[in-house]
Amino acid sequence: MGNAKDDDRERGLELRRKLNGKRFGDTSTVLVEEEPELEDLVNEVLFGRIWSRDKLDLRSRSIAVIAALTATGQRPQLKNYIANSLNAGLTRDEIIEILIQLVFYIGLPPVANALAVAQEVFREEGEE
Amino acid sequence: MGNAKDDDRERGLELRRKLNGKRFGDTSTVLVEEEPELEDLVNEVLFGRIWSRDKLDLRSRSIAVIAALTATGQRPQLKNYIANSLNAGLTRDEIIEILIQLVFYIGLPPVANALAVAQEVFREEGEE
Amino acid sequence: MGNAKDDDRERGLELRRKLNGKRFGDTSTVLVEEEPELEDLVNEVLFGRIWSRDKLDLRSRSIAVIAALTATGQRPQLKNYIANSLNAGLTRDEIIEILIQLVFYIGLPPVANALAVAQEVFREEGEE
Amino acid sequence: MGNAKDDDRERGLELRRKLNGKRFGDTSTVLVEEEPELEDLVNEVLFGRIWSRDKLDLRSRSIAVIAALTATGQRPQLKNYIANSLNAGLTRDEIIEILIQLVFYIGLPPVANALAVAQEVFREEGEE
Amino acid sequence: MGNAKDDDRERGLELRRKLNGKRFGDTSTVLVEEEPELEDLVNEVLFGRIWSRDKLDLRSRSIAVIAALTATGQRPQLKNYIANSLNAGLTRDEIIEILIQLVFYIGLPPVANALAVAQEVFREEGEE
Amino acid sequence: MGNAKDDDRERGLELRRKLNGKRFGDTSTVLVEEEPELEDLVNEVLFGRIWSRDKLDLRSRSIAVIAALTATGQRPQLKNYIANSLNAGLTRDEIIEILIQLVFYIGLPPVANALAVAQEVFREEGEE
Repeated sequence: MGNAKDDDRERGLELRRKLNGKRFGDTSTVLVEEEPELEDLVNEVLFGRIWSRDKLDLRSRSIAVIAALTATGQRPQLKNYIANSLNAGLTRDEIIEILIQLVFYIGLPPVANALAVAQEVFREEGEE
Repeated sequence: MGNAKDDDRERGLELRRKLNGKRFGDTSTVLVEEEPELEDLVNEVLFGRIWSRDKLDLRSRSIAVIAALTATGQRPQLKNYIANSLNAGLTRDEIIEILIQLVFYIGLPPVANALAVAQEVFREEGEE
Repeated sequence: MGNAKDDDRERGLELRRKLNGKRFGDTSTVLVEEEPELEDLVNEVLFGRIWSRDKLDLRSRSIAVIAALTATGQRPQLKNYIANSLNAGLTRDEIIEILIQLVFYIGLPPVANALAVAQEVFREEGEE
Repeated sequence: MGNAKDDDRERGLELRRKLNGKRFGDTSTVLVEEEPELEDLVNEVLFGRIWSRDKLDLRSRSIAVIAALTATGQRPQLKNYIANSLNAGLTRDEIIEILIQLVFYIGLPPVANALAVAQEVFREEGEE
Repeated sequence: MGNAKDDDRERGLELRRKLNGKRFGDTSTVLVEEEPELEDLVNEVLFGRIWSRDKLDLRSRSIAVIAALTATGQRPQLKNYIANSLNAGLTRDEIIEILIQLVFYIGLPPVANALAVAQEVFREEGEE
Repeated sequence: MGNAKDDDRERGLELRRKLNGKRFGDTSTVLVEEEPELEDLVNEVLFGRIWSRDKLDLRSRSIAVIAALTATGQRPQLKNYIANSLNAGLTRDEIIEILIQLVFYIGLPPVANALAVAQEVFREEGEE
């Protein structure tokens, strides 16, 4: 019989695999390696219990996360989630438009920084 | 012949009217009254030139704005845009789920504050 | 046989009861009521899995949380955790000293705000 | 006869020497070099008058500073104070636990960034 | 013979008296009352050693402080310093223009909040 | 007959040319290149309509922007505007004093970071 936490972790890892695509397991997607407790929280709780809820689609969740990480200026995480969002149904033009949409709410500097991150992701994805 | 700036303002006001619904013209939606230059920026540029672009739907723009205002803790503006988002195609359950989605990215306190704002909006809308 | 998640929740609730003392169950300590999923996260994960780890004492955890909430200006949560910290082994003088210690690292305004919150807690606790 | 400001500066420098250990005088610990007024403030006031007060031990002060710098994302200063905290009585495991403790209060991204800084400090200290 | 710290405090108090004008001694200008150590820091160091330096005029210092407090959303302190700035040579129109100037750098919400604070100050000053 | 938006853009570009001086057109001054809509906003609205208003001199506007960017830690934009401010009437000593002035309002870490940026600008300008 399955353990509830193991089920959460399995569900979470499956979703991360889908969102990370070819990058699954890359350092850039595993930001808290070496801390097993945090890895467990990310897999079981963040992806297994929150991202997996069926109350909102992955595309909408991605928009919210990109906007929040842009507002807080969390560059490496933003890069990871912009790349993920291409596997969650967002197009490059939509990602750029999400960032432009925020200019009046958080100011131009964090938007300009996030646009640079997005261009970096698009270049790297384009090369593959 | 129409002036380009007047066209922008007209388009912006029309969109604000749609998003504000019954609240259009209320103090809560006019956060920078008494400063004509800022009112012009909001109508002509923010709503007339950014929100009006057809590259992204109003629902997605609303998610991004709600997430950014939650992350930055801008309470009165968050209240206005949560109310607007009900006219942009988001349901109450989706709005709550957007906030829960952010817990691991910005922490529980700003999410708890935003949930309280959302409950306030839902109560006020329910009374009408 | 006990379910692992239930064990976490039970351990978490026990710890909250200890930290909240007479305030246990008060609205001020239940900041995300009405959202069962978040209540579960707080009980099972935050208190049952993180606060409960034996790698660090409750006093030290309280200092870290008070400092972080002061730096981010999260007033209602700060009030709750300053009250909790009196049950985690901190004295009033120590709490004030923690706040003064932060002046050069985050500036005077958030420290002054937090001192006002601490005074409010001390007055309320003193009345009981 | 001793001048009060000179006494403060002497006390402050002595404490910095203790906290910096082998790194005393390194660029990484002198973040405002070339601005004598700020150096005076740091030595006389920050270390001579605040850190030196006997109302709170150095270990607790270090926890508060590490938490505040993690919350505000001040990377070079965080690196300096994590290294200092090893001379203030904190172990490596306790430092990591302080950071994990903050996940639900400020979100995962600043915690992940701070964990990377801590690993950097531990590697550098380990080499010596 | 004068003590250097006493000289600093005297110089600082004199400057606060000038900037506060009729409000000198009011609660609104004494944000850290009840903490003698912080009051000393404010009088001796902040006003006696920093604000008093002749390298920059009071008007320019006021602009910098208003902009920083607007960006960080520190409302009670912002109110105090906007009132002070009227005694440092800024006009009401200039104060409003400083806030409008920041829209693209920090976003509209903190600017709108600061404009409301400024209007509050102007109303209170006008009544006197 | 001139178009109102074209007039704004022309006025804005002229002002950017003045503030950027020899750096006009450099990548460092064009932070949102590749996004024509944002470039238009910067030229027409930010520089053509806000910076160009005659209600406040360029020197005062520069102080406000430098203070806000220091408070929010926006490093590349801060570098650009510190360089601009030398063309807006601020001296190197005044720029440093503006930063020192902020220590008690936002804490030492963002001030130390901004001082490092200023030293970088001064070295680069000195070399030319």
